[in-house]
Amino acid sequence: MLDALFRPESVAIIGASTKELSIGNRIIKNLVDFGFKGSIYPINPKADEVRGIKAYNSILDVSNEIDLVHIVIPNKFVPMGIEDCGKKGIKAVIINSAGFKEIGGEGIELEMQAVEKAKEYGIRLFGPNCQGIINTDSEVKAYCNFTFTKPEEGCISIVAQSGGVGEVINQRFSELGVGVRMYASNGNACDISIPEIIRYWGDDEKTRVIVVHVENLANPKEFMEAAKEAAAKKPILGMKTGRTKEGAKAVSSHTGGLARVDIAAELIFKKCGIVTFRDEEEMCQAAVAFASQPIPKGKSVGVITNTGGPAIIATDELVGAGLEMPPLSENAKNVLKEKLYSAASINNPIDVLATGNAGHFRAAMDVLMSETHIDSIFINFVTPFFVDTDSISREIVDVNKSCNKPIICNLMTDKSQWTETMAILKSGGVPCYSFPETAARALVAMTKYSDLKARDIGAVTVFNDVDNEKARSIIQKARDPGREHLSAEEVNNLLSAYSIPVAKWRVVNNGSEALEAASEMGYPVAVKVDAETIVHKSDVRGIALNLKEEEVKSAVEDMEKRFAAEKPRFFVQEFLSGGREIIIGAKAEEGLGHLILFGLGGIYVEVLKDVAFGIAPITGYEAKEMLSSIKSNKLLSGFRGEKGVDQRKLIEILQRVSQLVTEVPMIQEMDLNPIIAYEDRVCVVDARIRI
Amino acid sequence: MLDALFRPESVAIIGASTKELSIGNRIIKNLVDFGFKGSIYPINPKADEVRGIKAYNSILDVSNEIDLVHIVIPNKFVPMGIEDCGKKGIKAVIINSAGFKEIGGEGIELEMQAVEKAKEYGIRLFGPNCQGIINTDSEVKAYCNFTFTKPEEGCISIVAQSGGVGEVINQRFSELGVGVRMYASNGNACDISIPEIIRYWGDDEKTRVIVVHVENLANPKEFMEAAKEAAAKKPILGMKTGRTKEGAKAVSSHTGGLARVDIAAELIFKKCGIVTFRDEEEMCQAAVAFASQPIPKGKSVGVITNTGGPAIIATDELVGAGLEMPPLSENAKNVLKEKLYSAASINNPIDVLATGNAGHFRAAMDVLMSETHIDSIFINFVTPFFVDTDSISREIVDVNKSCNKPIICNLMTDKSQWTETMAILKSGGVPCYSFPETAARALVAMTKYSDLKARDIGAVTVFNDVDNEKARSIIQKARDPGREHLSAEEVNNLLSAYSIPVAKWRVVNNGSEALEAASEMGYPVAVKVDAETIVHKSDVRGIALNLKEEEVKSAVEDMEKRFAAEKPRFFVQEFLSGGREIIIGAKAEEGLGHLILFGLGGIYVEVLKDVAFGIAPITGYEAKEMLSSIKSNKLLSGFRGEKGVDQRKLIEILQRVSQLVTEVPMIQEMDLNPIIAYEDRVCVVDARIRI
Repeated sequence: MLDALFRPESVAIIGASTKELSIGNRIIKNLVDFGFKGSIYPINPKADEVRGIKAYNSILDVSNEIDLVHIVIPNKFVPMGIEDCGKKGIKAVIINSAGFKEIGGEGIELEMQAVEKAKEYGIRLFGPNCQGIINTDSEVKAYCNFTFTKPEEGCISIVAQSGGVGEVINQRFSELGVGVRMYASNGNACDISIPEIIRYWGDDEKTRVIVVHVENLANPKEFMEAAKEAAAKKPILGMKTGRTKEGAKAVSSHTGGLARVDIAAELIFKKCGIVTFRDEEEMCQAAVAFASQPIPKGKSVGVITNTGGPAIIATDELVGAGLEMPPLSENAKNVLKEKLYSAASINNPIDVLATGNAGHFRAAMDVLMSETHIDSIFINFVTPFFVDTDSISREIVDVNKSCNKPIICNLMTDKSQWTETMAILKSGGVPCYSFPETAARALVAMTKYSDLKARDIGAVTVFNDVDNEKARSIIQKARDPGREHLSAEEVNNLLSAYSIPVAKWRVVNNGSEALEAASEMGYPVAVKVDAETIVHKSDVRGIALNLKEEEVKSAVEDMEKRFAAEKPRFFVQEFLSGGREIIIGAKAEEGLGHLILFGLGGIYVEVLKDVAFGIAPITGYEAKEMLSSIKSNKLLSGFRGEKGVDQRKLIEILQRVSQLVTEVPMIQEMDLNPIIAYEDRVCVVDARIRI
Repeated sequence: MLDALFRPESVAIIGASTKELSIGNRIIKNLVDFGFKGSIYPINPKADEVRGIKAYNSILDVSNEIDLVHIVIPNKFVPMGIEDCGKKGIKAVIINSAGFKEIGGEGIELEMQAVEKAKEYGIRLFGPNCQGIINTDSEVKAYCNFTFTKPEEGCISIVAQSGGVGEVINQRFSELGVGVRMYASNGNACDISIPEIIRYWGDDEKTRVIVVHVENLANPKEFMEAAKEAAAKKPILGMKTGRTKEGAKAVSSHTGGLARVDIAAELIFKKCGIVTFRDEEEMCQAAVAFASQPIPKGKSVGVITNTGGPAIIATDELVGAGLEMPPLSENAKNVLKEKLYSAASINNPIDVLATGNAGHFRAAMDVLMSETHIDSIFINFVTPFFVDTDSISREIVDVNKSCNKPIICNLMTDKSQWTETMAILKSGGVPCYSFPETAARALVAMTKYSDLKARDIGAVTVFNDVDNEKARSIIQKARDPGREHLSAEEVNNLLSAYSIPVAKWRVVNNGSEALEAASEMGYPVAVKVDAETIVHKSDVRGIALNLKEEEVKSAVEDMEKRFAAEKPRFFVQEFLSGGREIIIGAKAEEGLGHLILFGLGGIYVEVLKDVAFGIAPITGYEAKEMLSSIKSNKLLSGFRGEKGVDQRKLIEILQRVSQLVTEVPMIQEMDLNPIIAYEDRVCVVDARIRI
């Protein structure tokens, strides 16, 4: 429970300062200005009072109980400060001071000391190198933070890894006149983490929307669990920044090269049902709608407008994002025909005309509310001087009270003139926007959340026909001598242990054995030299493909001669031609598990980068989604007379690969490339596994 | 010259009304409230005065000269009103009244009458069914419009096809505290057009930026000419709305199916150097930067920040849009090392730290100004309470005065508290934004304009080795009997007339002739039945491919038998295998000329829709750009051991196709599909031309 942090009844400031422009002074000012309901205890051995409040020499001199302590003293004194807090029985400490992990060296050491001390006394730490928290709850009014934005009470809670980003978001809600519930920016996050905060707010009844900013996920699994749980209860809007920086990281294999961290972050967000944004403003504007409106049940929007051009823009935006604007029922049209001006448009969008009055708007809203196939209402409302716009607002507010379907309003007006029209809508809880695009995107985000919530990815299939022990032993055997890559034989055995189909193969010692093996598996075949010392086989002509019966022996014997020094064995494999080249890969991501990759091989992955990712373990639903989300997915089901491929089998292989890397996490990287897929058969032809 | 419209010295209102909530009253109120410098003449036969201004029975009763007249009377009286204006010698008329072309039928008739009357008297018409114009020039102060936003004087001029969209944009500039120069929304645009207005503003010295909104281009060519001319003088920011609506239009051929009108609009914008937007807010925010800042010379940005998180977002946004953040010179770093705090980051971004003061900001700006490889400066400025932010603002303003490189400022502050900091930046002409994304996008737009301006697409190559007369006569011969499609023979002759290389071919009458023809061109060959009555040849087995010498005769004789009733001839053609399939197409777009399409054939165009478009006539530069702009362009230069193709030849074919459709505009649609391209040869294998 983070109550001591977010709902403190008393706050002490170790490092309270009499200097106006210091953080140790500002926090006290902020607490007072914000109307903090509890007691404030400045700790300053050199002053009798700070900002008119009695100061104490030491926290141990305070006789009353204290919930939360700010520490705002130079880094090297912080562990000592925590010691004092421990002795006093403090529950939570915000370390605002900087000079810890972020400066490296001594800072890392100091942070570890602080954490240890805190553990010793059972203190929860927030920070260091952080802003702090805000709680607008009228019973609390805690502004334990040195920043400047004073939010109104509301139902949006914000947690931001970057204080700067958090402040911008908090500020924006203030500008938009929208309240905030709680705010937290925890800097180095040495103890209390973003996932823990999300979980806390998930349980906080008065938090209706959670807004999250992260730059990196310290513990992706913990984040996923907490976010998934909370997102099932209330919308979480999330933004991950630092995309391009991370993207610069080039890795050798396809999977590595393409699976950049931002892809993982957006996958994680999606997997736990977070609505993802790439723009702070868009996220803030969406949060405004989430804060007051019910979630739409589906993607059908009914649009009401009293002006043409902006309705076109709204349509572009809504339809372009995959929402639908279905036609109205005949019954609805008849009602509108009767109630609106004759020149009005009774399609969707319903254009009540610039001269449309409150009655017309009401009629249009009532119709959309009663149309069962309409899930949300978008109102495009310009305020002409010749109609009574206040009455229109009142009608919108009245309909909004029913809370049946979300209402989003693009209010195009002069904010200095139509103050009453605006005030009515605001106090009636109707989210208003200045642009059709902005309003539309907010509705799109709500619909996305509705989709994410409705989406049942099912359970992970666990295949029982796998031989986990064998897989582990193969890897252990390669690991013991310190090898990083498995041999072709080991790879194939490992795949077979998880019933992942591989092209027929055998390892042989010479030309005659090769011929025998080839005859057994059928022609044509491929032959590859197999020796630990030969890594890049094709560079040294260590591969011979598409061999007929008469060519096998001589191919092997030629290699035998050329590689005599390496004492090689030979890998004889069924040679498959035709079919589609598929690539499936997996790559370990620290703290997350494995990313799974799916794509068509060759130019599709190399030139077009047309691939899909998933986070292991993936369910059948997710594997299917991966197949259908690549742009070239039509090729899987057949195209231009060419046959399609066995997609069910591919989905199964994806799940088996997911199970393999989950159960054998020593696998660092795995590339099944190519897999040859036919209408009735799917088969791994070449694979590479790094451990 | 549109001076009578935009700089009227006197305005009369036919339809001036005493009713407060009428347009005929509101326009007078707006003129008065806005401080119109000229005379106002209400025309109202039933009133002595309107809003305290003497009213006249008829415009003919006014003895003074009048420049501009509003007509706000029922549609059917409008032509009569224009007649009066003619008699009075009026130069320009704004018809605010609706009920014209937009209602169809009688409205169309009335609009034509109005236009005719106006022509008769040499009157220029604006509208009908429109808002009007605004001119903020202190010498003019004309608010000839019934809307509500009262812009400040500034240097951005706005023209919007939709009055609603124009009003939203105008309103947004007001909210942003940014001035507007002129405003126009011309509704049905029966006479004065958007291109004409753009041209007028191109010549208006005090218009520094032009903002354009269009829903459709009535005359794309006129628009292109005017916009190109103006964009060479000053930035034009443009937005075309109605994308999805138009996109729904499905056409049969590839070219048609993919060349949607919005693609054409964005191509047109690009071709004339307009910076294109898909979001009003983004366009407005960019305009703010254009209004005060010089255009960057290149894409290298230097970033200064005093907070980490938002700088990451700015980096994401800038780098993600193709801008660069190059490292600083050693010299620059040394200066920074000396002048900034030791913990400051002296890379790009330069992080002066939250405690950074005016001197630190100044040092960073001076360094970036003197770094010759840096083209623009992005400042991320959060306002901590513990530094003197006013002084920082003053330094930014001081550096901004030099006008050497554009400065964009993301100012993260509480607008109600840091009023002085903001006021200093505003009066110093520094464009400020509330989000790093918004600020970054404005800079991206400026850099895009710089690119567009610097881009020299060169002149259109006119090939002299073409036989235009032959091409025309081929088409005329097909046209006379009313055919829509050319025969294979005609297509090949037409292409040859423009020296577009086609696979060797001959038309023959029977098997022996076929054999003779095939032997001449070499094997393998393809044979196709050729009869006007047989349209879908492959459906009736009228095509035989990849024929060896011994197969030719029998293939033809088999077809002879099966199609005996049609009395067919046969098309014998060189059969090409291997190589890359290319598709080049052209399609006539009304009022624009032709769109040219380029793409790789097969799945690239059909599944991946990976194609590029151009507007004929295209230059060599544009053709080259089309090749390089498809996603799969790597395949053209060779990939994975496969050879590349003769790109020079493809570029030439694109130009020749462009010349063909430009010189022979009767061609409605043309599909060269496939073209087979090798390293040393490019050749049209199949083509379809609709006239």
